[in-house]
Amino acid sequence: MAELITLGEAMIRLSPPDFKRLEQTSTLDVHVSGDELNVAIAGARLGLSTEYVSRLPLNPFGRMINNKAREHGVDTSNMLWSDKHRAGFYFVEFGANPRTHNVFYDRKKSAIAKIEPGMVNWDQIFKGAKIFHLSGITPGLSTSAEATTKEAMQKAKEFNVIISLDVNFCPGLWSEEEAHKCLVDLMQYTDIVVTTKKDAKTIFHIDSKKNEDVVRKLLEKFKLKAVAVTQRETLSEWKCKWTAMASHDGKIYDAPTYEIDIIDQAGCRDSFSAGFLYGYLTSDIDYAVKFGTAYSALNHSIHGDINWCTKEEAESLMKNS
Amino acid sequence: MAELITLGEAMIRLSPPDFKRLEQTSTLDVHVSGDELNVAIAGARLGLSTEYVSRLPLNPFGRMINNKAREHGVDTSNMLWSDKHRAGFYFVEFGANPRTHNVFYDRKKSAIAKIEPGMVNWDQIFKGAKIFHLSGITPGLSTSAEATTKEAMQKAKEFNVIISLDVNFCPGLWSEEEAHKCLVDLMQYTDIVVTTKKDAKTIFHIDSKKNEDVVRKLLEKFKLKAVAVTQRETLSEWKCKWTAMASHDGKIYDAPTYEIDIIDQAGCRDSFSAGFLYGYLTSDIDYAVKFGTAYSALNHSIHGDINWCTKEEAESLMKNS
Amino acid sequence: MAELITLGEAMIRLSPPDFKRLEQTSTLDVHVSGDELNVAIAGARLGLSTEYVSRLPLNPFGRMINNKAREHGVDTSNMLWSDKHRAGFYFVEFGANPRTHNVFYDRKKSAIAKIEPGMVNWDQIFKGAKIFHLSGITPGLSTSAEATTKEAMQKAKEFNVIISLDVNFCPGLWSEEEAHKCLVDLMQYTDIVVTTKKDAKTIFHIDSKKNEDVVRKLLEKFKLKAVAVTQRETLSEWKCKWTAMASHDGKIYDAPTYEIDIIDQAGCRDSFSAGFLYGYLTSDIDYAVKFGTAYSALNHSIHGDINWCTKEEAESLMKNS
Amino acid sequence: MAELITLGEAMIRLSPPDFKRLEQTSTLDVHVSGDELNVAIAGARLGLSTEYVSRLPLNPFGRMINNKAREHGVDTSNMLWSDKHRAGFYFVEFGANPRTHNVFYDRKKSAIAKIEPGMVNWDQIFKGAKIFHLSGITPGLSTSAEATTKEAMQKAKEFNVIISLDVNFCPGLWSEEEAHKCLVDLMQYTDIVVTTKKDAKTIFHIDSKKNEDVVRKLLEKFKLKAVAVTQRETLSEWKCKWTAMASHDGKIYDAPTYEIDIIDQAGCRDSFSAGFLYGYLTSDIDYAVKFGTAYSALNHSIHGDINWCTKEEAESLMKNS
Amino acid sequence: MAELITLGEAMIRLSPPDFKRLEQTSTLDVHVSGDELNVAIAGARLGLSTEYVSRLPLNPFGRMINNKAREHGVDTSNMLWSDKHRAGFYFVEFGANPRTHNVFYDRKKSAIAKIEPGMVNWDQIFKGAKIFHLSGITPGLSTSAEATTKEAMQKAKEFNVIISLDVNFCPGLWSEEEAHKCLVDLMQYTDIVVTTKKDAKTIFHIDSKKNEDVVRKLLEKFKLKAVAVTQRETLSEWKCKWTAMASHDGKIYDAPTYEIDIIDQAGCRDSFSAGFLYGYLTSDIDYAVKFGTAYSALNHSIHGDINWCTKEEAESLMKNS
Amino acid sequence: MAELITLGEAMIRLSPPDFKRLEQTSTLDVHVSGDELNVAIAGARLGLSTEYVSRLPLNPFGRMINNKAREHGVDTSNMLWSDKHRAGFYFVEFGANPRTHNVFYDRKKSAIAKIEPGMVNWDQIFKGAKIFHLSGITPGLSTSAEATTKEAMQKAKEFNVIISLDVNFCPGLWSEEEAHKCLVDLMQYTDIVVTTKKDAKTIFHIDSKKNEDVVRKLLEKFKLKAVAVTQRETLSEWKCKWTAMASHDGKIYDAPTYEIDIIDQAGCRDSFSAGFLYGYLTSDIDYAVKFGTAYSALNHSIHGDINWCTKEEAESLMKNS
Repeated sequence: MAELITLGEAMIRLSPPDFKRLEQTSTLDVHVSGDELNVAIAGARLGLSTEYVSRLPLNPFGRMINNKAREHGVDTSNMLWSDKHRAGFYFVEFGANPRTHNVFYDRKKSAIAKIEPGMVNWDQIFKGAKIFHLSGITPGLSTSAEATTKEAMQKAKEFNVIISLDVNFCPGLWSEEEAHKCLVDLMQYTDIVVTTKKDAKTIFHIDSKKNEDVVRKLLEKFKLKAVAVTQRETLSEWKCKWTAMASHDGKIYDAPTYEIDIIDQAGCRDSFSAGFLYGYLTSDIDYAVKFGTAYSALNHSIHGDINWCTKEEAESLMKNS
Repeated sequence: MAELITLGEAMIRLSPPDFKRLEQTSTLDVHVSGDELNVAIAGARLGLSTEYVSRLPLNPFGRMINNKAREHGVDTSNMLWSDKHRAGFYFVEFGANPRTHNVFYDRKKSAIAKIEPGMVNWDQIFKGAKIFHLSGITPGLSTSAEATTKEAMQKAKEFNVIISLDVNFCPGLWSEEEAHKCLVDLMQYTDIVVTTKKDAKTIFHIDSKKNEDVVRKLLEKFKLKAVAVTQRETLSEWKCKWTAMASHDGKIYDAPTYEIDIIDQAGCRDSFSAGFLYGYLTSDIDYAVKFGTAYSALNHSIHGDINWCTKEEAESLMKNS
Repeated sequence: MAELITLGEAMIRLSPPDFKRLEQTSTLDVHVSGDELNVAIAGARLGLSTEYVSRLPLNPFGRMINNKAREHGVDTSNMLWSDKHRAGFYFVEFGANPRTHNVFYDRKKSAIAKIEPGMVNWDQIFKGAKIFHLSGITPGLSTSAEATTKEAMQKAKEFNVIISLDVNFCPGLWSEEEAHKCLVDLMQYTDIVVTTKKDAKTIFHIDSKKNEDVVRKLLEKFKLKAVAVTQRETLSEWKCKWTAMASHDGKIYDAPTYEIDIIDQAGCRDSFSAGFLYGYLTSDIDYAVKFGTAYSALNHSIHGDINWCTKEEAESLMKNS
Repeated sequence: MAELITLGEAMIRLSPPDFKRLEQTSTLDVHVSGDELNVAIAGARLGLSTEYVSRLPLNPFGRMINNKAREHGVDTSNMLWSDKHRAGFYFVEFGANPRTHNVFYDRKKSAIAKIEPGMVNWDQIFKGAKIFHLSGITPGLSTSAEATTKEAMQKAKEFNVIISLDVNFCPGLWSEEEAHKCLVDLMQYTDIVVTTKKDAKTIFHIDSKKNEDVVRKLLEKFKLKAVAVTQRETLSEWKCKWTAMASHDGKIYDAPTYEIDIIDQAGCRDSFSAGFLYGYLTSDIDYAVKFGTAYSALNHSIHGDINWCTKEEAESLMKNS
Repeated sequence: MAELITLGEAMIRLSPPDFKRLEQTSTLDVHVSGDELNVAIAGARLGLSTEYVSRLPLNPFGRMINNKAREHGVDTSNMLWSDKHRAGFYFVEFGANPRTHNVFYDRKKSAIAKIEPGMVNWDQIFKGAKIFHLSGITPGLSTSAEATTKEAMQKAKEFNVIISLDVNFCPGLWSEEEAHKCLVDLMQYTDIVVTTKKDAKTIFHIDSKKNEDVVRKLLEKFKLKAVAVTQRETLSEWKCKWTAMASHDGKIYDAPTYEIDIIDQAGCRDSFSAGFLYGYLTSDIDYAVKFGTAYSALNHSIHGDINWCTKEEAESLMKNS
Repeated sequence: MAELITLGEAMIRLSPPDFKRLEQTSTLDVHVSGDELNVAIAGARLGLSTEYVSRLPLNPFGRMINNKAREHGVDTSNMLWSDKHRAGFYFVEFGANPRTHNVFYDRKKSAIAKIEPGMVNWDQIFKGAKIFHLSGITPGLSTSAEATTKEAMQKAKEFNVIISLDVNFCPGLWSEEEAHKCLVDLMQYTDIVVTTKKDAKTIFHIDSKKNEDVVRKLLEKFKLKAVAVTQRETLSEWKCKWTAMASHDGKIYDAPTYEIDIIDQAGCRDSFSAGFLYGYLTSDIDYAVKFGTAYSALNHSIHGDINWCTKEEAESLMKNS
């Protein structure tokens, strides 16, 4: 009975402190990380009722992921549990110019990669829901995850739930062609797209220099209620500019650009998605894109994916920008 | 719509690491701590549906307390929020023989001390509930907290909810006479009492050497469904023996005694209460007192109040004892 | 028998490490913090004999504050001790653009807020003293603190001790009107004022764009020996420019501007005050404003209020600027 | 050209600090762990020339394992590297009575589990070697690892290298029957067996109450040069008694029993094996079992598997026992 | 103008955390350590006015030592400063049975080893003083330190200051013969001796099995006002029994024996000396030995030399023993 | 039988965390540090066979230094060990503008300062070697170290080993005149010089504004195979630009300039030397100077001297610059 439903994988993120390399470290910081989990958490913190659907291993890491969702008020009562599979891990090394941040994955055979159609009780979950959000990662996890994604979208359609997709192409999971084929197909169910200029080119073959054109072409190409494009201009490993643009009903809405000191940029587009969807549900697109941008700008200042900022802090930033 | 409802204060516990004194420390470990919060969390971890009722300040510490409850699946949807009051703090120094552990409080003017009858929506909370648990701390917080406690117990009675009370006399809050007068009066509503030999003497003037006599006399003196007495024999600051005894329908049920290496004994009787009530609701008193004792024995091995152990671990300990 | 006497509150400052939010932190860094304590410590480190007067709770936090003063050679032999009141706390969250630093206070009912005229042995303290320094915070703590402040200033006048006031308006304590009324009244005793353009406007209704005009108008308005104005131009949460200007006998003295990487800007104006008063006592105003600026510029690079730099380091910076 | 050659898996061990549960931790301590790696390192620290053979992933964790071996002077020049597989992980929770230590594994698909006969250049490795040591874990990793183990033992035989086997049955890897069948078969190549009473029963069906009988029966049953049995009597999660017994040429040699405060018991039998083999090569069995016991007793006092103690410290302990 | 004057070396103590070996550690804990500094600090904490005399390098470590003394209220105004010499260091590894604690020194060429007669202004220091305390370490530092020690004792005699000596033979500094010769000579100035059975044998050739006999023979052999002997019975690296005995005017006074969980036993006899001298000055020998024993028993529970406990805590322990 | 041989001192570097001053710190981070050790380690990580020659104390710090070399694959089999001398220490305080980084040394009487000609088995070491690298620090340690350096260079010449010298004038060790006299004399053996514009002026009296002129004049003045000059333009305590230029056979080779966020600049020129020599041995001067610059640019991002980056990372950076 939540307003916002998300489906996807959450992993355990392990990272050495203090700019250390993995090869040299004697401790690792532990975070829980996952696009759709982030959106559910941020949505709940902003005041929406949200539910997170995933498949977790019945071990301490699975419980940790479930706990982190609940800590912020996310409903996890339809979580699937597996006593046969593992939690995925990934590792992050933080760099400093000219050494770049480094990520590597050890996520194979995770519980959600082994999810299958029919496992989730979508009839109960989508009853009364307003938005179903997922990312382009979930169908890339495995063939059965792709099938489950499609099943979920079809079910959402039956319940008249708006479907929001963050394209988020992840090269380690599948090839560009595979992602293109799958995600273009899933656009038939999609109402809202959140993406970047780069992913629009890779996945939808929209090759434009300006965000405005990307937004316009996406609206032309697919039958969408709204499109949002986020943009990060990297100045160094510790600094960037961050903004977004959205379109709805043929009009373009632009957010201001924030100068950002990056502590950890993980989960920032998820903060945008949550803020954007929160604005979409409670106000209008103009507010949505501006609020989403401010809220996600704040997320850069906190270690880990989770946006510990409040709606009031984002609104205060909007006013002072 | 939870089975187990608890009402009480949760505080921020600050303690220096590594046996340091407060006077010398440059860091403090942060824990969330509160008898009734602990019971709600432990109950949820054991599989009961639980709800925690309190009054929290609308600031990061209030949110932290609320988060910790939700992290373990506790419902906090009837939480009261105050933008005028503070969170209580208390400070713990860990000792080593012959230096004893040290505690001091800075809890005055907390949000829940300012709670008043009529603030809580008990009609909604007690609908469908099975047990209402609270401690003798709550009515000691202030006159209005005492009145609210009484109101809650009367409401619980109306809804035929079983009332469980952990006597837990806290000398810093009120005098022995005040506590005696108040808690004896509250016994008219109480169905289950959890206490110690020492508190039975202080509060109920039952002066017996044996737990069995304490249990018997409590059952004689008040109209109770069940009584449980926990017992810690302190061997050193780091070692103790731990057991409990319960009675119901005139029979005495005894738990084995555990030899314990203490890491942190905070919250252990709350773990017992939660385990005992879990057993009371799902099995019988014999199981309840044995399960509660095993589950709380495990809690001594973890820093902070929260019992991160599982039902399976407690049952495995029961089998091997 | 110290040269420099200060009177004021010191609090326990608790801050999460590593850019964490209070809501999420599991440890807090502990610092001792207080404008007048900072000045007494910095003065002692620079070679002056200094004494710090305050009222502290007779508990580990009170002793910690007293210890930190003595650690640097500050005399605390006239400290008042209360076994009935608490130490004030305040909490700091460190931000990163665009998330700003955050401060919130839990300082009510502190021992010094309950100080009263007649408690301090000013006759002994001011005998042989040269400067009495305090901030505009002290009279704002309570009505009795305001009366005690006034008593102290009058006593200092009797002993021909120069009185130095750092205006430092703290909005959480009192309204602009209350502060204006009180501090304008206290100017009758004041010889040296340290302030900012903003506080000069708020408290003294001097609305000028240039520091030079602020300095001139303060000298016109009140009968002062010297005025100093510090100026921070915030570039980001981590970067600023820092300078100061002073006036004495109708002449203006200007310090160079330092580009600063901020680690923690707490206590920086207090470092300026101490350096300025040190220069005032041992050299001339030109040296005083330059030395104070260099010494306080260094303080930005250290966590907490206390300026662990040396006179030699400040002088070396002055030479290289 | 090393004297002591070992073959086996090394894993990354991740454990929460300070008695935390995995479910609650926000940091993990990183250690490198592996029976045969431990023996090679301890051997090198004792003054033997040693070489460690394994198969590692070409990533930071593979390099970390290789580094730790080299740090102590172990030759790793015949290490195999795979760019397709992962490093195994395992997780340890430290308990306190009555909560037991907890271990769980995530080691599937590791690089060495995918090792195959023919990959290792045994001709070069065994030239001039004196002892080849391995554990019963290696053949349990996979069918190909079992074949590789057998190949290695046959090659060692060709080069007249003494073969030492630490039985070490690991239930998570294979069944008792599988281990029995494989390890009994490998006894045809084995010269020295290090084991425990429990493993002797599980794997070799030798069911005796006394270590002496276990040792005797092993010597009767198989054609061995020497047998050693270690014994831990667990007093609590933090305390044990530790001793060993060995036999050679029909005589029994007994080591004293050490009372031990356990910090971390990982790798202790490997320390025994290394100390025993060191004694075997440089002195006699009597010295070997006493030195091995003393050296491994010391290892209980250090976090992680690696024995950072020196030969001199073990000999000093022997003298004082 | 202090009551209690001490003279001696203070060093920087560096120790690895968490039972690590020096060879493996990546961090070191920093403490300030020195017998006579400890006595001055503990004396000040107990309410005596105390002064510490030493010679320190004019660098951060010298300042750190000076700060730690002042932090607890010790007067250091007669400290000598050298810009040519270093601070001594020593390193401690904490063991666990059967691995013993380990200490090694790097203290040569320290500033105080280069102290010379005539450097200290004893006339000013001893004016009004009651007790001069030092340890047998100071004369062992160097020939010039020995001469300075003798000069100080002679000066103290001139001012009728009671001289207290903690024998404390340190084998790394000088031979038993050298120490014997020097310390027996210094007994001509000594009024109070604090020592152990072992040091009494090594230095004074008093070979008795019972503390009582040691005390008696010391009183016979030298012209002393009082003698105290402390006794530690080591049960393990983490456990001991601790007591003391004293004599005065031919009577023997015995303290109870405390069972102790050792966190860090550094500085415990210094705590005894301070407590004993405090009792000697403010009460009688019976109280002195009992208070000294209780106060030093508490010191075992805190990392580092400094006794952060209070007089009230020691008196509370005395009452409950 | 290594390709690259280095000779020099390694010290224990102790530094306070988190921008703390030494005077205030309660912990120190431990690193191993030494120009020639760094070059040997970096060379080994890049794939060269390398050997490090030094003289170490037979204590935990000596073993730690030896371990760190071996960890990365450096041969230390000709290490000299002394049981009479100490390891040198040095202390680093990290600053932030305008407070500068601070270094101070406590390195006197170290084992290598007491090295003497004839101690090292150069005949074995230089057999088959290609390059002998050392810095201008080694001959500055002591007269006997200077003689040993000269002996080593003469021996290297006999074996036709190319000699590489990093000038690296260290003012704390000797005067400019002493260094000038010694190092100019050593140029008769030197084939490759790595230096800076500043050191070229101080030591070789080459006073040019442009690196190109420095390189040219060095080649004119001495009979060299190659010269490299590194250049750091300090922008703040945390930011710099970094580049290098080299010459060989009359041609100038220039590396790109990197914008760098400095975490710790220790050991960066050593990374350059290692990368440059690696390029010199395996490719040409153009590659050598570009690779060395990229590889050392990366080293600024890691705490401590050791360059934990890989050849692949440096090459990837070269491609993207």
